[in-house]
Amino acid sequence: MDFRFETRVRVRFAETDAQAIAHHSVYLVWFELARIEYLERFRGGYPGLRETGIEALTTEVHVRYLVPARFDDRLAVKVRAGDLRGARFRFEYLVEREGEALADGWTAHACVDARTHRPTRVPGWLADEIATAEG
Amino acid sequence: MDFRFETRVRVRFAETDAQAIAHHSVYLVWFELARIEYLERFRGGYPGLRETGIEALTTEVHVRYLVPARFDDRLAVKVRAGDLRGARFRFEYLVEREGEALADGWTAHACVDARTHRPTRVPGWLADEIATAEG
Amino acid sequence: MDFRFETRVRVRFAETDAQAIAHHSVYLVWFELARIEYLERFRGGYPGLRETGIEALTTEVHVRYLVPARFDDRLAVKVRAGDLRGARFRFEYLVEREGEALADGWTAHACVDARTHRPTRVPGWLADEIATAEG
Amino acid sequence: MDFRFETRVRVRFAETDAQAIAHHSVYLVWFELARIEYLERFRGGYPGLRETGIEALTTEVHVRYLVPARFDDRLAVKVRAGDLRGARFRFEYLVEREGEALADGWTAHACVDARTHRPTRVPGWLADEIATAEG
Repeated sequence: MDFRFETRVRVRFAETDAQAIAHHSVYLVWFELARIEYLERFRGGYPGLRETGIEALTTEVHVRYLVPARFDDRLAVKVRAGDLRGARFRFEYLVEREGEALADGWTAHACVDARTHRPTRVPGWLADEIATAEG
Repeated sequence: MDFRFETRVRVRFAETDAQAIAHHSVYLVWFELARIEYLERFRGGYPGLRETGIEALTTEVHVRYLVPARFDDRLAVKVRAGDLRGARFRFEYLVEREGEALADGWTAHACVDARTHRPTRVPGWLADEIATAEG
Repeated sequence: MDFRFETRVRVRFAETDAQAIAHHSVYLVWFELARIEYLERFRGGYPGLRETGIEALTTEVHVRYLVPARFDDRLAVKVRAGDLRGARFRFEYLVEREGEALADGWTAHACVDARTHRPTRVPGWLADEIATAEG
Repeated sequence: MDFRFETRVRVRFAETDAQAIAHHSVYLVWFELARIEYLERFRGGYPGLRETGIEALTTEVHVRYLVPARFDDRLAVKVRAGDLRGARFRFEYLVEREGEALADGWTAHACVDARTHRPTRVPGWLADEIATAEG
């Protein structure tokens, strides 16, 4: 299975730790960057989603670390949207350095009404556009 | 199954995000705090492990977010060691606020020689002490 | 000049960088922790201030780094409130490890109305209580 | 006085806080990005400097926050090198959003031998190249 979209990140010095590798928590920040850039191709993207009164919460994350990333490494964070069902959606990720897989993972999300924090469906236009993009 | 050890954390303002909740990446930092405090009961703990020339790498993480944590919340991060097999070990976590479960998760780790980065067994004394603590 | 209040912090592994020292940006997070704990002695403290519709913005920071802090170091972050004038106030800090000064600095802040973001006076009760505490 | 070099950054969601603005500590991370990109034009830059056995420590920072930055803002972090004297050097910064100044500041640094941590001169080639770049 392949990825049609990727975000480029470069390992920041502040993201390294005393093992001289990127701290494992930072991958979740990179996944988020990739997810937000992925979404921004669609009608204002994530900021646009927030303006319609919908917040997307992260409900679950999973990361497998294969090879450490180091300061100043240029990485590709590949991302694709997975199942979109009602209020829930999912993204999958692959972090590569010059074609070598450093990590992979997935995140699950739920749309909630920004005011009531009740679950709300993923807007139809977004579901449709993602289905088209990934189809 | 229950937890015999916990670390207390308090949500820092810098850990919140524009949703006014603790950013989901921060839970990995809290897990790490709990894991390090857990280990420090044993012969110098994680700093001690590093001094013997062993680094513990994080190889996999999983978090489920149930209820958001907010600025200044006092949290209990419960932790227990799981399977210890050869070079690999695992921890499980439960984040609670006044008895309410906010998140749970687990992390997997591998011991490597700090110089060669080759896998190396979890030191016997540590495996024994953890087995006793959790037994 | 001396400090009557301090917050204890312990250097987190995630706060270290590839120089194996606490990253210099983290001191601002520690200053914030110390400032918030300082304020919490007064009527609900910073969360209480926010509930009255006042936000405190950070308008200026200064840090001098004297000796690096390392993973797992136990630090005292000493703090005192300085000038309180109209909408503006200031804090001073000293970071110590077993009595040795590692860093010092100050931060300046302004109170704004949370809705309009216009400057608003530091509430009288807070100014009075700080004056008493530091007097 | 003007800047000849700038780095582009985009405010990450993880960099915002519960005031819905970029947390003030993050500017030091952006300054660092700008400084490292500035240096990378010269013989391998900061990674190159580290490979010659020299570490650059941050000894002092100062930031003035004028206007908050928000999630997804595209910022220019302008940077220039200042005084280079012996082991010490200095950088100045200006953070802009579409030409509007959001913050400014400076950082001071010292070169140390990576092994002994003793002060060591800024390498002549680097001092010369910076002087040429800024001259």
